[in-house]
Amino acid sequence: MKVGILGAGQLARMIALAGYPLGLEFIFLDPSADACANPLGEHLHGDYNDLALLAQLAERADVVTYEFENVPADVADFLSSHTQVHPSPKALAVAQDRLVEKNFFNSIGIATPAYAAVNSLDELQAAMATIGYPAVLKSRTQGYDGKGQSVLRTAADLAAAWTVLDGVPAIVEAFVPFSREVSVIAARNAAGEIVYYPLSENRHRGGILRVSECTTDDRLQVSAQVYVTRLLEALNYVGILALELFEVDGQLIANEFAPRVHNSGHWTIEGAQTSQFENHLRAITGLPLGSTAAVNKAAMVNFIGGLPASADILSIPGVHLHLYGKEPRKGRKIAHATLRTETAENLAAITAQLARLADQTDDS
Amino acid sequence: MKVGILGAGQLARMIALAGYPLGLEFIFLDPSADACANPLGEHLHGDYNDLALLAQLAERADVVTYEFENVPADVADFLSSHTQVHPSPKALAVAQDRLVEKNFFNSIGIATPAYAAVNSLDELQAAMATIGYPAVLKSRTQGYDGKGQSVLRTAADLAAAWTVLDGVPAIVEAFVPFSREVSVIAARNAAGEIVYYPLSENRHRGGILRVSECTTDDRLQVSAQVYVTRLLEALNYVGILALELFEVDGQLIANEFAPRVHNSGHWTIEGAQTSQFENHLRAITGLPLGSTAAVNKAAMVNFIGGLPASADILSIPGVHLHLYGKEPRKGRKIAHATLRTETAENLAAITAQLARLADQTDDS
Repeated sequence: MKVGILGAGQLARMIALAGYPLGLEFIFLDPSADACANPLGEHLHGDYNDLALLAQLAERADVVTYEFENVPADVADFLSSHTQVHPSPKALAVAQDRLVEKNFFNSIGIATPAYAAVNSLDELQAAMATIGYPAVLKSRTQGYDGKGQSVLRTAADLAAAWTVLDGVPAIVEAFVPFSREVSVIAARNAAGEIVYYPLSENRHRGGILRVSECTTDDRLQVSAQVYVTRLLEALNYVGILALELFEVDGQLIANEFAPRVHNSGHWTIEGAQTSQFENHLRAITGLPLGSTAAVNKAAMVNFIGGLPASADILSIPGVHLHLYGKEPRKGRKIAHATLRTETAENLAAITAQLARLADQTDDS
Repeated sequence: MKVGILGAGQLARMIALAGYPLGLEFIFLDPSADACANPLGEHLHGDYNDLALLAQLAERADVVTYEFENVPADVADFLSSHTQVHPSPKALAVAQDRLVEKNFFNSIGIATPAYAAVNSLDELQAAMATIGYPAVLKSRTQGYDGKGQSVLRTAADLAAAWTVLDGVPAIVEAFVPFSREVSVIAARNAAGEIVYYPLSENRHRGGILRVSECTTDDRLQVSAQVYVTRLLEALNYVGILALELFEVDGQLIANEFAPRVHNSGHWTIEGAQTSQFENHLRAITGLPLGSTAAVNKAAMVNFIGGLPASADILSIPGVHLHLYGKEPRKGRKIAHATLRTETAENLAAITAQLARLADQTDDS
């Protein structure tokens, strides 16, 4: 069976590495000639909206998936009219527009911060009267790792923040005084079977994920599962989905979801019985889903922009290295390390050691 | 860093899958145009003794390794005069001749069955006077999975067994009344650091490995480590080595060693903190070796000749599938499944369940 992937970055690379043992083959469509997944399959080289290439992909792949959510709607529709596409175009459409996403969350009973659509400076000013400061102004579409977002602290920030957006449709959201950021990653297959990983507790800096730790018996595990189940079922979703949540006063509030494998689930490669990459493939190829139980205590640390010597990373007990085959570049995610250890004390200590090592070469 | 591999079968495939996360790239030399590792790297297509191709491999790879021991001596010498080769030509030379190997074992104090070199039917008859029945007649070189071996039960078997050998230099070995077959897999790097996996307990049928289980605190672990340490150090060995042993009256007697990753170590993919494939790469690329500790209880079952539906295998709890991308063919190893579970009882029960499943499609 051949799996087509839109995109050939590190997520596609890790999907492919998980897929060969299942007997799968891969074909990638990516505009970059040296995308880091390319050595692991066939490569269609061109733009994501090149219909001739998309037709080739659809013809040669038994099922198509993607490593990012900003797939244009007409591309997703074209593909799904020619072959199986998982997750569905509907999931993409909801995930790629922050306003549609928030409305969808609310329609299925998933709490969100207060928000409002804004299409002009006037609308922004009007919205802030009810939303209150601080708040965050974001474009409705595009942007990741906090790019293009402005924090609004007083009325004096509004005009400048609106100018940054350059007139694109936007959403303003109340800034949530969260005590913790967590994500719940779940897989659903076409038979409707759902499996849930233990919550990831995530630490960001500068809008970029730095550290994720697998939690143990988290008191919000069940609440998160209730939310993600609603989302998976409402979207008739097939594949891995990651729902990012804030903890506020002991309750969960949804931030956003990613209709794909997610950075906060990279600890599952060594830290779960079945990795998120393998379960994504099992889901989209119709295989039984694998156990999501943790194997010991697990965490993950990202390497951004630069990289310590591999030997320095691998000499730390319980650590595995995952290089993406990408050249270092300012602010670029180029690798992560996973940690698997027996005790919570070791987990905290070694994660801190790894994070310090990552900080030494982090230029972001 | 680019790793060259002689051979592009399943062992090369699993080495490559373990190597991408370490940032390694791969180039294979293999006579088969559709060898199963080919999708995972560059492919030099031709014979193993094609000097022009070997020169290309040596030039383009920073280090060369191999997935089988029957590399001709002149090929190993040629490669090692042009680039780094691990393990060394010396290890190959010893491993590929059963007489040289047994002599070497004895020279470093590793016990073996009684044996004798035989180059004629007369010599065979003379040897049997001291070795005694039953015994096994084998060619000194070539042959794997028991191919080309004859069991000698009485003097009446000698002439026919000799005819089968067709005049090639041979060795006759006393048949050992073993209670158990085990293997010890160890890795040594250029700095002389050595790590040892828990003993694998192996079950063969028809000369082919069917099941390996990872042992826990085996009473012969230390004895096996003493043996394999002698071997690694005497050969100044770098990489993974597997030493196959018989248990006879509570003592270990060496059968043979493989200077490479080994089928009886496939359980390490999920069942050890670091797989044999990753530790082989760490060793030959000068990285610190990873922990060999078991993760829960682990076992492996081979699929020979045929394959049950993937869904049937993956619906068993704790099981991971490793397909080699090879077409089924009579007697051919085409996949294995690993099992990781919490208790010895589960290990025994699920291993038996997997073995029954494998037997249903096993045509050997």
